[in-house]
Amino acid sequence: MKKTGGADALPLKIIPLGGLEQIGMNITAFEYGDSIMVVDCGLGFPEDDMYGVDLVIPDVTYLEENIDRVKGFIITHGHEDHIGALPYILKKINVPVYGTRLTLGIIERKLEEHGMLETTTRKVVSFGQTITLGEFHVEFIRTNHSISDAAALAIYTPQGILVHTGDFKVDYTPIYGDAIDLQRFGELGKKGVLVLMCDSTNAERPGFTPSESTVGQTFNNIFEANRNKRIIVATFASNVDRVQQIINTAYRYGRKVVIEGRSMVNIINTAIELEYISIPENTLIDLEELKNYNDEQTVIITTGSQGERLAALSRMANGTHKKIVLGPRDAVVFSSHPIPGNEKAVTKIINEIFHKGADVVFQDAHVSGHACQEEIKLIYALTRPKFALPVHGEYKHLKAQAKIAAQMGVEKDNIFIIQSGDVIKIQDGKMERDGQVQSGMVFVDGLGVGDVGNVVLRDRQRLAADGIMLITFAMDAENRVVSELEIVTRGFVYVKEADELLEDIHMIVDDTIMEHFEKENPGGRAKLKNNIKDVVGEFVWKKTMRRPMVLPVILDVE
Amino acid sequence: MKKTGGADALPLKIIPLGGLEQIGMNITAFEYGDSIMVVDCGLGFPEDDMYGVDLVIPDVTYLEENIDRVKGFIITHGHEDHIGALPYILKKINVPVYGTRLTLGIIERKLEEHGMLETTTRKVVSFGQTITLGEFHVEFIRTNHSISDAAALAIYTPQGILVHTGDFKVDYTPIYGDAIDLQRFGELGKKGVLVLMCDSTNAERPGFTPSESTVGQTFNNIFEANRNKRIIVATFASNVDRVQQIINTAYRYGRKVVIEGRSMVNIINTAIELEYISIPENTLIDLEELKNYNDEQTVIITTGSQGERLAALSRMANGTHKKIVLGPRDAVVFSSHPIPGNEKAVTKIINEIFHKGADVVFQDAHVSGHACQEEIKLIYALTRPKFALPVHGEYKHLKAQAKIAAQMGVEKDNIFIIQSGDVIKIQDGKMERDGQVQSGMVFVDGLGVGDVGNVVLRDRQRLAADGIMLITFAMDAENRVVSELEIVTRGFVYVKEADELLEDIHMIVDDTIMEHFEKENPGGRAKLKNNIKDVVGEFVWKKTMRRPMVLPVILDVE
Repeated sequence: MKKTGGADALPLKIIPLGGLEQIGMNITAFEYGDSIMVVDCGLGFPEDDMYGVDLVIPDVTYLEENIDRVKGFIITHGHEDHIGALPYILKKINVPVYGTRLTLGIIERKLEEHGMLETTTRKVVSFGQTITLGEFHVEFIRTNHSISDAAALAIYTPQGILVHTGDFKVDYTPIYGDAIDLQRFGELGKKGVLVLMCDSTNAERPGFTPSESTVGQTFNNIFEANRNKRIIVATFASNVDRVQQIINTAYRYGRKVVIEGRSMVNIINTAIELEYISIPENTLIDLEELKNYNDEQTVIITTGSQGERLAALSRMANGTHKKIVLGPRDAVVFSSHPIPGNEKAVTKIINEIFHKGADVVFQDAHVSGHACQEEIKLIYALTRPKFALPVHGEYKHLKAQAKIAAQMGVEKDNIFIIQSGDVIKIQDGKMERDGQVQSGMVFVDGLGVGDVGNVVLRDRQRLAADGIMLITFAMDAENRVVSELEIVTRGFVYVKEADELLEDIHMIVDDTIMEHFEKENPGGRAKLKNNIKDVVGEFVWKKTMRRPMVLPVILDVE
Repeated sequence: MKKTGGADALPLKIIPLGGLEQIGMNITAFEYGDSIMVVDCGLGFPEDDMYGVDLVIPDVTYLEENIDRVKGFIITHGHEDHIGALPYILKKINVPVYGTRLTLGIIERKLEEHGMLETTTRKVVSFGQTITLGEFHVEFIRTNHSISDAAALAIYTPQGILVHTGDFKVDYTPIYGDAIDLQRFGELGKKGVLVLMCDSTNAERPGFTPSESTVGQTFNNIFEANRNKRIIVATFASNVDRVQQIINTAYRYGRKVVIEGRSMVNIINTAIELEYISIPENTLIDLEELKNYNDEQTVIITTGSQGERLAALSRMANGTHKKIVLGPRDAVVFSSHPIPGNEKAVTKIINEIFHKGADVVFQDAHVSGHACQEEIKLIYALTRPKFALPVHGEYKHLKAQAKIAAQMGVEKDNIFIIQSGDVIKIQDGKMERDGQVQSGMVFVDGLGVGDVGNVVLRDRQRLAADGIMLITFAMDAENRVVSELEIVTRGFVYVKEADELLEDIHMIVDDTIMEHFEKENPGGRAKLKNNIKDVVGEFVWKKTMRRPMVLPVILDVE
């Protein structure tokens, strides 16, 4: 390792390619000399107007252009917004993946599904261990989060030490494993931390996030109050500790447990294999065995707490689940809060559950996995960074952390709120913005990755709003119309009730064709099509105040 | 009036045509003998997947079929979800409209915009006044809500007295006018109330909704803390009392006030004319005068607190407002809570405001206009109804009120949770479900009312998800293809990068046509088109896992 910040040291660069000014799609490149290492490789979920898009992954053109220098991906924890893009990105940039045991366990299941397990190098890292990627040395530090084995990173560079918290909270009484290694954060602070990159998700919230273990007492109360009912608990598939607590309470009350929902079954199986969850014997039963027990003897733990339309809970609520029929003897517990944007979907399911006669338990059976203001302050107090670079969150969250950083003594000019694609350059104890690289979202739709772009999306938005009107006819080489004029609409108007409008459009198109060829220099087919598009578009707008896509197609007939 | 519930009395019917199991679109018919009266006539807002739909109005086929018996519309208050469908429905059912002074003032502006003021009979009703509509006698009772002049109704019928609360809260210290007339509710209870139809919106929330006047102190605090800034307050256009309080505080701090946003300007002008708001002289200024004052001397009260894309606040936030440019010297106050479903839109605007350097004030400057559990209990305690028929809300809200009704002593079998279109029949002190009438949503899209139905909507959803593929060619009478095969896609795939796929589809269509006519009984053009649709659809699904609408069009050439 070169002497820190020596005159011969090269500039260090931090380049977030996603995850800033948005929730999800976390990925950040660190660059020094001929070494690039990438922290996390997450996916994002499409906005409401990204019709037909299944998920979004980061644009990693910058990494592809510098592929020879990329040494590996370091993954902080096993959530989709940190690992979900790996199968797509590794196809282009096949470098080793580093992470803790559970994190890699979850990634491996994902790679297996994509048939990529053989071709991907994976390296399990323990807490306290330091790995080397080119010029970088990276130490994994234990934190707490809503999934076990979450890590913060101390990144040692010739320019100084960077600390990246990953997603974290401070939980003194976690369900599995130890509490966050606050001592190590303190030690690093004593050594001198150049840059702190800290989770901003809850930076607007005052106080402390309660310990995951507080939820256990709530489950006890709920089980006590619903002794005569079947209990169905919906939570996040990846929250292994939550599932552990539900199982503990179920065992205490002598109930059998069914795990339902593909993603939860996958993760819990991984957790069982790797011993991140401990289930008493004869507690877990298969869905098929459910019928052998009375309602009050069972608990179903399921996915779908966010109102996801295809998840198990949704199927139970709308009556399409093949094995589980909801009724008056069910109590459904939401062990989750709706993620912003999902409120209506969750409400829809709650209404459906009530309709089935089942009860919905509103008691608060959830805590966040992210640090609130006092926890963020604690990390600043321990690390005392020279520079603050808030990460993970929308602009308002980054802004809220910037305020905390200032309160905690970071100089105002040393606090950077940046966007994905911004390049941060650090040299000789100075940090500055240094241009931008290509970044953005790549849409995944079905099997297509990147073939749906903004043009296609704009067309979909237009088609969604007002539909399409196709106008087609055939012409011969002498510009005579030699077929009927066919007008077909979809998504525009119920045709059986719009005869008059369509007749008018017929006449208008006929007139437009005639007038076109009466001109001295009528121009070609393209000009005629444009004329039709304009004239019909305007007529339709006046008559209906709608703007369907007007698509003239002229066939040439010899 | 016939003797209550006498042996000769006809059945009384209550028929909600909207507003149950949904938020908005409130409309309920009451029917006795040859008299039908309708309470409220509101609009609803489209769900996320109702692409292109501007608003929804109730299907009033039942009223149209019984038009000779419809005596009038009684409107409880001037909110869109209670008045918004009037211009559409009055066109079909032109009967008198009854309401309090401010309510009718707001309705009249709306009718004026639709050019319907001349043709609509309007009758202003005072609190305590009883009007007669056929066999019905209806008394208006003062309540409180987030708009002034809200009324509950006592509906006197030969079968007994019904009480309909409208939207309400209990506010002992309202800003304008008197507190809710609880004494009258008590008197009616003493007389004997047959059915209580009570607002369920906040029935899940324990406790009491705070008085509107509590918000005034919050404004004082906010103005005090932002003495050096321009203050921009976003709230609901129709909340005249809120605007009054902002103006009061502005006046106290010597600031000039601009009202911005078309719907707010409209309603405040009506409120000024009718003296529902009192504005100190020289306080209100025009938007154009803003430039004559320093930032710290002005307040802008604006629409757009729900993140509505075209509202004034949205235009300020995204930099497209023509007169108001946000900057570091602005403090933006949200005097509202996001209505469920609007959370993401509101967050988007908050992020944009922060981006402009302006501050967003998160202090709670809002109270609800709806009764919480203790207020609902109070109304039950005063009226002691025999039957409970919870109104206004989704299923979970109705269910929550049903629980309260039971707690308050209404017999379980006398509590009815019904859906729009259900018919409730009351005779001889008995209440029962008695079939259904046609009901539902009619979509308004541009100038079209009802011409976008489920078929068009499903097409839009399909087009939005995967786009369209048009396949067209010309054939002569001998079934020879006499033109090129044209394949045009929109919203499916970026064509320049999908050459190969489209070439494959060309070949497949050629083959399908050939094979079709090689058969002994090939069938007509419709059969050929179906074949093409199926074969291409399946091929595209296999290759892309997308399902664009495949639309074959065959032109006949002589």
